[in-house]
Amino acid sequence: MNKPKIVILGAGYGGLMTATRLQKSLGVNEAEITLINKNDYHYETTWLHEASAGTLHHDRARYKVETVIDRSKVKFVKGTVTGIDKENKVVNLVEGDYQYDFLVFALGAESETFGIKGLKEHAFSISNINSARQIREHIDYQFATYATEEEKREDRLTIVVGGAGFTGIEFLGELANRIPELCKEYDVDHNSVRVICVEAAPTALPGFDPELVDYAVNHLTSRGIEFKIGTAIKEATETGIIVGKDEDIEEIKAATVVWAAGVRGSSLIEAAGFEAMRGRVKVDSNLRAPGQDDVFIIGDSSLVINEEVNRPYPPTAQIAMQQGETCAKNLTVLVRGQGELEDFTPDLKGTVCSLGEHDAIGVVFGKKVTGSTASFMKKMVDNRALFMIGGPSLVLKKGKFNIL
Amino acid sequence: MNKPKIVILGAGYGGLMTATRLQKSLGVNEAEITLINKNDYHYETTWLHEASAGTLHHDRARYKVETVIDRSKVKFVKGTVTGIDKENKVVNLVEGDYQYDFLVFALGAESETFGIKGLKEHAFSISNINSARQIREHIDYQFATYATEEEKREDRLTIVVGGAGFTGIEFLGELANRIPELCKEYDVDHNSVRVICVEAAPTALPGFDPELVDYAVNHLTSRGIEFKIGTAIKEATETGIIVGKDEDIEEIKAATVVWAAGVRGSSLIEAAGFEAMRGRVKVDSNLRAPGQDDVFIIGDSSLVINEEVNRPYPPTAQIAMQQGETCAKNLTVLVRGQGELEDFTPDLKGTVCSLGEHDAIGVVFGKKVTGSTASFMKKMVDNRALFMIGGPSLVLKKGKFNIL
Repeated sequence: MNKPKIVILGAGYGGLMTATRLQKSLGVNEAEITLINKNDYHYETTWLHEASAGTLHHDRARYKVETVIDRSKVKFVKGTVTGIDKENKVVNLVEGDYQYDFLVFALGAESETFGIKGLKEHAFSISNINSARQIREHIDYQFATYATEEEKREDRLTIVVGGAGFTGIEFLGELANRIPELCKEYDVDHNSVRVICVEAAPTALPGFDPELVDYAVNHLTSRGIEFKIGTAIKEATETGIIVGKDEDIEEIKAATVVWAAGVRGSSLIEAAGFEAMRGRVKVDSNLRAPGQDDVFIIGDSSLVINEEVNRPYPPTAQIAMQQGETCAKNLTVLVRGQGELEDFTPDLKGTVCSLGEHDAIGVVFGKKVTGSTASFMKKMVDNRALFMIGGPSLVLKKGKFNIL
Repeated sequence: MNKPKIVILGAGYGGLMTATRLQKSLGVNEAEITLINKNDYHYETTWLHEASAGTLHHDRARYKVETVIDRSKVKFVKGTVTGIDKENKVVNLVEGDYQYDFLVFALGAESETFGIKGLKEHAFSISNINSARQIREHIDYQFATYATEEEKREDRLTIVVGGAGFTGIEFLGELANRIPELCKEYDVDHNSVRVICVEAAPTALPGFDPELVDYAVNHLTSRGIEFKIGTAIKEATETGIIVGKDEDIEEIKAATVVWAAGVRGSSLIEAAGFEAMRGRVKVDSNLRAPGQDDVFIIGDSSLVINEEVNRPYPPTAQIAMQQGETCAKNLTVLVRGQGELEDFTPDLKGTVCSLGEHDAIGVVFGKKVTGSTASFMKKMVDNRALFMIGGPSLVLKKGKFNIL
């Protein structure tokens, strides 16, 4: 019984793809596969902006890991990873230690506040099911409280979104849909509500096609969202945020601040002694940590350079899933000691950024799309992720079919 | 055009009953009837414990005043009453003044904190749609926050209910139903939740049949509610409540404190110079303020003595509605200047206290009832109030038919 032990950390897009591909490619007697995850469920990170705004129930954005795992081949452990001992090939969990022969590190991203004072304490971040649910309930509570206040607190219904990147814009789109519902639910006048997006960069959605950026900003502006572009958040406080620099600062009072401007790789990466930039390891062509043939790093904690522009690919679900496929293939080769390791090459099909339920912008197969076409594409992208991991039955169970 | 002006303040049980009866008994040319209410809707005060616990949506517990008003006969004014000038027969509103020949004061109850320190600032009260909605959202938010906390705040999910009277017990019954749902919604272990009822009197439900009180307390205890009977709240603080007296005090930490132990009549009663006890005026047999033939006072700001026990009847929806009927009859007599004024005699059909969705206790037509029979009765009582004011169509629209 000398089966090699494969331990996969994280049941996100990358980890779960690795596990589901491995359970197809390897026989029961070829390896002992263990999948470790903090929760007993997988959640759709790319749908959290909807759960946070309250436009999609969080249960629609998650499913039990066991629904896609073949338990005869993959052992699932619900546990919280606290560290990795590369020398001794051991993973430490709150619940105990696990020995590995091959490790797949797929623990995903953490919120990055770039050292901005007060953000950790006073801002929410769209990070996981728990935090999304809390944002939703926090906003609801502000509306409920506003309705009971004798003296209305003016900034009670002001929501600041920090960052006009992908997550920020998608969250704003959902808020634009949600606010009228909230006004109705809590008997609040729409004019009492303000949603302000603050972005330090000189444009929203940096890196996106300017025509599409205009489309998005105009769309959201017409639905009441205010933009402060080229404006840096200096500090978050108990009562809101402070923007600007040097003497030229301004306070924006807001009962709700959501930070949607940055992610970094897992802090366990640095703690384990991997060389990394903000928790991201520049992996080799086979997706392994440099000089560490037994450790694969995929998803948001890995860094792959796009040679065409000599810059890293942004961390996306699409890339994480493709990495999971390559990782599973390479593990199969290593376990069997035969065949050739595959180089990872991202196959980018496009990017679609939603702007609420029935609008979106994107570039798909090199073509710009907007409006209901883009919105349809977005839902197909979401359904595709379900299909890749859980097949047609998961699409039927959790898919998005609210198509105009 | 010298039609007498009848002004009705409040569209609660008493005021709305008066208005709907008057629009039947008086012709268009006999009187000018104005109904003034803070909101454009009536709400079921006796259902607010459900809206507060989140077991019934608040929209189910309210309906637009105009749905039951005949606008050819009753003018509805959405306005907030600030005072009454008896001498000049004028009602002052934030929005302007209204002259009356006959006034019906039916503004309902206010929360009474008996001077307990901190209650106003730190405790919620089940008073109206707004406050009920806020309690619901506050509790939801505590659950959502608990799920995100790294270090769980132990008293985050502790709910203190002040008072084991009618409202307190009914609210506890709904909480017992709601807590399992909340645990599911927020992935929280039921054992992390505590619901504690604190009552100063030596028994729960003072005045109720002891056998029924035992039934209620046992039922709620078996569903996880803790009781501290004979325990007075000394103070409410930012972190919970302090109970006991003199040196023998104890702090109960709780993120949620709901005060359900007392109501008083409207504070406008005293401000207007009526002789009153805690905002309640001992009205004459025709329901008028003593020595004030043009002012009827009904509902929670009126006080009617039960001669049998020489104590005031408790303020209930049942009595308020019956007063509304008598008030409308007497106004008709006064407007026409013919007929005889009617004496008000309460016709108590019984009292049912719900213990959640499918259980209750009560005395109906002199008979003790418990369990599903009592629960059924309770729903019929609720439906009857709808029927009395809005007829069968309102029962169909807002009635309770969730019968086991």
